[in-house]
Amino acid sequence: MSETTAITLSNALCSGRTTALALIDAAFDEIAQKDPQLKAFIETTPETARADAIASDARRLGDNSLGPLDGIPVAIKGNIARYGIATTAGIRAFSNRIATEDAFVVKLLQSAGAIILGTLNMHEGALGGTTDNPFWGQCQNPLAPGFTPGGSSGGSAATVAAGIVPITLGSDTMGSVRIPAAYCGLWGLKPTAGLISNRGLFHLSWTLDTIGPIATNSTDLTLALSVLAKYDPDCIDSCRAPDGWTAHQPSTNLSDIVLGVPNDTLLADCEPEVKAAFNHLLSAIQAVGIQTLSVDLSEWQPTRLRRAGLLISEAEAGHLLGAALDKDADGFSDSFRDMISYGRTAPGSKVAAAYRCLSEVRSGVCRELQGLDAIILPTTPQRAFPHVSPAPASQADFTALANAAGLPALAFPIPALDHGLPVSIQLVGNAFSDGKLIALGQMLSSI
Amino acid sequence: MSETTAITLSNALCSGRTTALALIDAAFDEIAQKDPQLKAFIETTPETARADAIASDARRLGDNSLGPLDGIPVAIKGNIARYGIATTAGIRAFSNRIATEDAFVVKLLQSAGAIILGTLNMHEGALGGTTDNPFWGQCQNPLAPGFTPGGSSGGSAATVAAGIVPITLGSDTMGSVRIPAAYCGLWGLKPTAGLISNRGLFHLSWTLDTIGPIATNSTDLTLALSVLAKYDPDCIDSCRAPDGWTAHQPSTNLSDIVLGVPNDTLLADCEPEVKAAFNHLLSAIQAVGIQTLSVDLSEWQPTRLRRAGLLISEAEAGHLLGAALDKDADGFSDSFRDMISYGRTAPGSKVAAAYRCLSEVRSGVCRELQGLDAIILPTTPQRAFPHVSPAPASQADFTALANAAGLPALAFPIPALDHGLPVSIQLVGNAFSDGKLIALGQMLSSI
Repeated sequence: MSETTAITLSNALCSGRTTALALIDAAFDEIAQKDPQLKAFIETTPETARADAIASDARRLGDNSLGPLDGIPVAIKGNIARYGIATTAGIRAFSNRIATEDAFVVKLLQSAGAIILGTLNMHEGALGGTTDNPFWGQCQNPLAPGFTPGGSSGGSAATVAAGIVPITLGSDTMGSVRIPAAYCGLWGLKPTAGLISNRGLFHLSWTLDTIGPIATNSTDLTLALSVLAKYDPDCIDSCRAPDGWTAHQPSTNLSDIVLGVPNDTLLADCEPEVKAAFNHLLSAIQAVGIQTLSVDLSEWQPTRLRRAGLLISEAEAGHLLGAALDKDADGFSDSFRDMISYGRTAPGSKVAAAYRCLSEVRSGVCRELQGLDAIILPTTPQRAFPHVSPAPASQADFTALANAAGLPALAFPIPALDHGLPVSIQLVGNAFSDGKLIALGQMLSSI
Repeated sequence: MSETTAITLSNALCSGRTTALALIDAAFDEIAQKDPQLKAFIETTPETARADAIASDARRLGDNSLGPLDGIPVAIKGNIARYGIATTAGIRAFSNRIATEDAFVVKLLQSAGAIILGTLNMHEGALGGTTDNPFWGQCQNPLAPGFTPGGSSGGSAATVAAGIVPITLGSDTMGSVRIPAAYCGLWGLKPTAGLISNRGLFHLSWTLDTIGPIATNSTDLTLALSVLAKYDPDCIDSCRAPDGWTAHQPSTNLSDIVLGVPNDTLLADCEPEVKAAFNHLLSAIQAVGIQTLSVDLSEWQPTRLRRAGLLISEAEAGHLLGAALDKDADGFSDSFRDMISYGRTAPGSKVAAAYRCLSEVRSGVCRELQGLDAIILPTTPQRAFPHVSPAPASQADFTALANAAGLPALAFPIPALDHGLPVSIQLVGNAFSDGKLIALGQMLSSI
């Protein structure tokens, strides 16, 4: 299924050149062949997937297809509830935490006919960016064996990059959809907070978490979002997009498009190839007439925000996982346990100040976004790195901004000038401009 | 000036029957006479007030009046910055914390010509509901000597109820504008979060605090709000009302008005006279054809929310005041110091869970408010009580709801059936329905 998109698969299904059952069987063949090394899956569900595929084929024969995702194989991150199997969140202590209900996003995928193949490997507890999971294995980057696919949604990116399925779901707390999308050369979206329901997500941080899709291209990403962006009255964080998420679209007149560019100091510590590719893109953007403006994001100190986000995640996860930690300490790795334990007992005022830091960043970025189509910056300061290297502390420095602000952020790949692993560009936009960001990303990636 | 409103004073100024200087001198005479017992002021500024009055009179003579508040005496709570005098927040440690800039609301009042007489007594640090201040005295309720005026904006309510000025500013973290308005038979508004800028407010809790006006009647309250509701680009919590705060008004057709009523269990622990007056009003409302619907506020457990709000206040105040506490412990009362000290070191996960509690309540009340003009409930479960009685833990049980949800809430007085101290009714509305709530309150108080 390599290099195949949801749209091409859907066309093949429509024209009768293949069947959902054939697609699903092929996908499981790929998993059987690749996953022993790839370590992208936590659990597969071939029986239900095959039954779903047979039902999809029957619908199609009866002219009752549910739309472009009907019969398309997908997979979900291991912290998203799937009825009847464990929602582990990559934590051994939850190996037997069987979901009694599908997550809202799973129901949406199913109501669109998508066929879920299983749950995907992730960084333990979603708190980390390498997906070197101590219980389910060291997930590999399909672009570079031995390299990390990023994380925490590493399995979600690896599965798409390996060509096993065209679309997966991840979750993004400080960058956990966009970082693996960046390292694996994919498109990933952290949607506006509340646009996609988090009900059924095993939370790391209820304040920062959002579920988001990963795909190989902008069309598939839009297709996924069109299914997932649905108000959920039973999710306290779900909200209605005032004008819908597709209402705003970029101008077709390039000179009417205005992108904000953070000042150079932000990029000082980027890997040279990331900086070079980003600046090359900026020049190309300006050459076609798109306006770029320097933006003042002085409220955003990436290191301070990263620490605030980490502390909030630790404190909230401490609340959620504390009882399990007390009961089954060995079901957690030492480092994850230490982080959660810190969050449980961290000084209250320090935690309060961390939340305030989010508000300050949100205020600053919202002010700067006025009149702009988006802010453009790299997704990560570095490209994928070998698992044997220590993970840089800066992995989420550029991505946490959108989580703090509750704003949508798109990651899309561009070539590196050294022809090595791809670089990833991020667009951060106003609330509910999710569809516009994808359209903009498509325009920019074609320049 | 007893029983005199801003509007009647403004008319008297317009017609030349009085001057701003005469009003200010009369107000200072009242202060000199009443405040030794009332204990409503922390500091008065007669020199600047007289100079401002002379300037106001000159504007009026030159036909350059700044509007209906020009020349009207007002006063501000002791935690609102006034250039050149101390912003104490009722804490002795800050007796010499001289403001180097006026609060944004002070600038707005001045640009409307209002004349500020001084800063008002308050519960120490705004953390409590009696205004029995250990450093600036036990503020009295003008309606009942020996009784508390409520708090924390006790001085703001006492000054208006004593007829010294028609309008004051308070601040409201869990009910600190509405509780004293309730106990003193006044109108008080906790505006939509962000509608009135908090810049220059000495914060207790940046998450929950809002500045709000207190007055004797709905017209004066609307007048104050029209001056105060202005977007402040330099305040991170300030926001623009999408359609303006006066855009929504109640239907003039009574049968089109729909009020939500929480179920009876909420009222179980109310003082009988509060319950009787509230139920009497509900019957009168129904008799004139206004619709009342029962609302499900199951996410709102008043005791749980009160504890969450208190913990957030303690943790945030701990962040803000910690250094001062370490430096000058004796500048704080024992009980206030204990609360702040608790907040500083409270377990991080517990603080995180308290913030989540706010989100849950916000989600529930916003859901229930859909299609309603407002939710109606008592402002406080009790009327004013003697200073010698212990303060009931439930004082803020009904008011904290609006702070948690970031929604506007109006307190307005109704007579008690026993002809004793007044009862107060609260209207909680959708975001930016502040003007509508005041208009609704006026309608309901006239039934």
